[in-house]
Amino acid sequence: MTQAVRHDAMRARNLALVLGAVGARGSVTRAALAEMTGLTKTTVSKLVGDLIEGGLVVETGTVRDGERGRPGVEIRISGQHVAALGLEINVDYLAACVVDLARTVRLRRSTQAVDNRAASPVDVIARLGDLAASVVDEAVEKGLRVVGGVLAVPGPVDMTSGVVHNAPNLGWRDVPLASLLRFPFPVGVENEANLAALGELWFGSGLPDFLHVSGEIGIGAGLVVRGRLFRGAHGFAGELGHVVVSPDGPQCRCGGRGCLEQYAGQDALQTAARGAAAPVRPATGTRPATTSGDAPAVSPREGTDAPAGAPGTLLPAQQGVSWLLSRLREGDPDARAACERAAWALGVALSSAVNLVDPDAIVLGGIYAPLFPWIGHMVADTLKARLGQMRGAVPPVVVSRLGAEAAALGAAGQVIEQVMADPAALLQH
Amino acid sequence: MTQAVRHDAMRARNLALVLGAVGARGSVTRAALAEMTGLTKTTVSKLVGDLIEGGLVVETGTVRDGERGRPGVEIRISGQHVAALGLEINVDYLAACVVDLARTVRLRRSTQAVDNRAASPVDVIARLGDLAASVVDEAVEKGLRVVGGVLAVPGPVDMTSGVVHNAPNLGWRDVPLASLLRFPFPVGVENEANLAALGELWFGSGLPDFLHVSGEIGIGAGLVVRGRLFRGAHGFAGELGHVVVSPDGPQCRCGGRGCLEQYAGQDALQTAARGAAAPVRPATGTRPATTSGDAPAVSPREGTDAPAGAPGTLLPAQQGVSWLLSRLREGDPDARAACERAAWALGVALSSAVNLVDPDAIVLGGIYAPLFPWIGHMVADTLKARLGQMRGAVPPVVVSRLGAEAAALGAAGQVIEQVMADPAALLQH
Repeated sequence: MTQAVRHDAMRARNLALVLGAVGARGSVTRAALAEMTGLTKTTVSKLVGDLIEGGLVVETGTVRDGERGRPGVEIRISGQHVAALGLEINVDYLAACVVDLARTVRLRRSTQAVDNRAASPVDVIARLGDLAASVVDEAVEKGLRVVGGVLAVPGPVDMTSGVVHNAPNLGWRDVPLASLLRFPFPVGVENEANLAALGELWFGSGLPDFLHVSGEIGIGAGLVVRGRLFRGAHGFAGELGHVVVSPDGPQCRCGGRGCLEQYAGQDALQTAARGAAAPVRPATGTRPATTSGDAPAVSPREGTDAPAGAPGTLLPAQQGVSWLLSRLREGDPDARAACERAAWALGVALSSAVNLVDPDAIVLGGIYAPLFPWIGHMVADTLKARLGQMRGAVPPVVVSRLGAEAAALGAAGQVIEQVMADPAALLQH
Repeated sequence: MTQAVRHDAMRARNLALVLGAVGARGSVTRAALAEMTGLTKTTVSKLVGDLIEGGLVVETGTVRDGERGRPGVEIRISGQHVAALGLEINVDYLAACVVDLARTVRLRRSTQAVDNRAASPVDVIARLGDLAASVVDEAVEKGLRVVGGVLAVPGPVDMTSGVVHNAPNLGWRDVPLASLLRFPFPVGVENEANLAALGELWFGSGLPDFLHVSGEIGIGAGLVVRGRLFRGAHGFAGELGHVVVSPDGPQCRCGGRGCLEQYAGQDALQTAARGAAAPVRPATGTRPATTSGDAPAVSPREGTDAPAGAPGTLLPAQQGVSWLLSRLREGDPDARAACERAAWALGVALSSAVNLVDPDAIVLGGIYAPLFPWIGHMVADTLKARLGQMRGAVPPVVVSRLGAEAAALGAAGQVIEQVMADPAALLQH
């Protein structure tokens, strides 16, 4: 019995070793796999056979002359069978995607006109279930087998229980999300900003060290250091939206005042763009003449929250970032000024973040991706003004190519990582 | 030749394995070491012999009945031979300490009445050299052999070149510190706040996860996660002193405005305590009636830097924190109000830090250790007001038992770690 357990553990370890080597090389012969892993050719052949049977790898069919004078069939990760489901609940949309084991995005779906703040968690999860079922059905039609999923949510998640203790922008408190999900495969839950950073790592720029900023109604960040996500002591790191921009600024839903979210979150941006908020910085809506860090002529006025229920405080999603983008393209001065204010506040909060965590680059994602042409320069200028004297090189500010899709992609990518780390869990004995 | 190189590498690895096992257990027999390391008893005996000869371990002399019926002499780390030098250059003091391999602090020395801002790097290093020579001489008299040192400096250090690019509080720019040091053993250079955090880890509270705050003229922080220091992408993480408290606040030496250092650094504190600065928060110097995060009646007034050369801007060290402490004990309202303002600002900056890096505890060190009775509560209250609604548990704010000694101890501790990781480097073949 102990012998059998040991054999199973060793087989599991070796399957992961071989699958990892295939993933690292792209395509590789059995002989090369034996060299890479230190296993015998016989063992490698047996393991590759199991992985082929399980649909995790496939022979390329390309027969080349091997180095030792005999033809070698190459093995690569199969994109035809095993797949992962990425899900996201955000404040004003739901998203789902399916990624195959070769990391190709096969399906993407998102709802547009929803406001999840007006719905109960049970209703939101029911709608998410419908969306997920439709993409899983489509995936099955493509011959894919969805083996697991991860759900991104806009708030800190207790990773062991799957409980969302507080997602203030959804109005959720102590929602036992993991236990409400009904899927025929395991589905984990994690913070949206963490997953968006992983999405950027696996499907985006390819940078190994960066701080990824997820601009949504709330603002989260994910720090990737040498290809790994930094989670902090309890997994709650990266709450950039509640970094202090101005300590006596507008009241925030988190209980603090003057948090970044109150200047640069999607709601704050749109309220300002409708002319309903404080005069922006600078008041004329033009770029400031100086970015040296001197006191500005006009600062964001503080404590000017629109009263609850006032026009513009709860925007329908169809009036979301696309409404703002069309205003910006028209040259609307309120919209431009709102973006300047948000970009300045982002620069201030990110200067604190750079001082604390020293990232190699800053990637602006979520709504900041489409807004980048209007905010990127000012974020970079504010950072340079605040950091330039201390640091020889201020981290570059770049745009995410994934935008709002990053979190769902990172969620699916996390399932792929799990399969790669433990393929034995998927295979029959 | 290759065989010899391989043998040396294996011996080096095994020496570290055995020394590490002794360090982990405290005291342990050769038989137990063989079991712990998987090495044969003959190999262990040979390695232990080498370690004894090199003075790294010692037989306890305590002979106990071994488990297998024969007496077993126990081995432990020797505190009698190998020792490490910890050094610190700070703005208003120099410090040196010697720690033996058993992690006992054997010597501590610091200068009191210096102002290193008024001196050239070469002069400061000459004085440091004198201080170091005196403690090394004393260590030699105690039979210790100082095998290496690390120097803590208050600014970011390029770890590969040993160049301090910018220590604004010392007025140093691009000082090639490592190449200016003259010691008969290797001496590394690292950032003071990083080393203070490691000092706290190795010689302080014993917590494995915390953010350590080094309050000096400048304010640095070191984040320890699961017993390891987080350094960021370039080793410049933890610049808490330049986290934004108020974006249009007083001009900071770093080029930014309203950085924490301008509210809670030692100079800012003392200037405020002399009544030379802005009215503090709250203006009466009493604790605010509410800590709920509501707008205060009076905020710190901003942009009120004392002009250069004005009384109180450059305090002689003898008037340093001891002067402030005596004022506080007398109940001086300006001194108390200055501490309230500093504590509030620390709370604001730390709330940003907690949101970004999610530490398990906050340890206040440096000058904040003696000031803790006057600032600890307000730091904790401000954190709770800003974080309490989002996070179930706000990290506790505790006082460092090491205070200003933490950095020099961490510096010596880093040499000890190096010896433990590679004892072969010290031993003759």
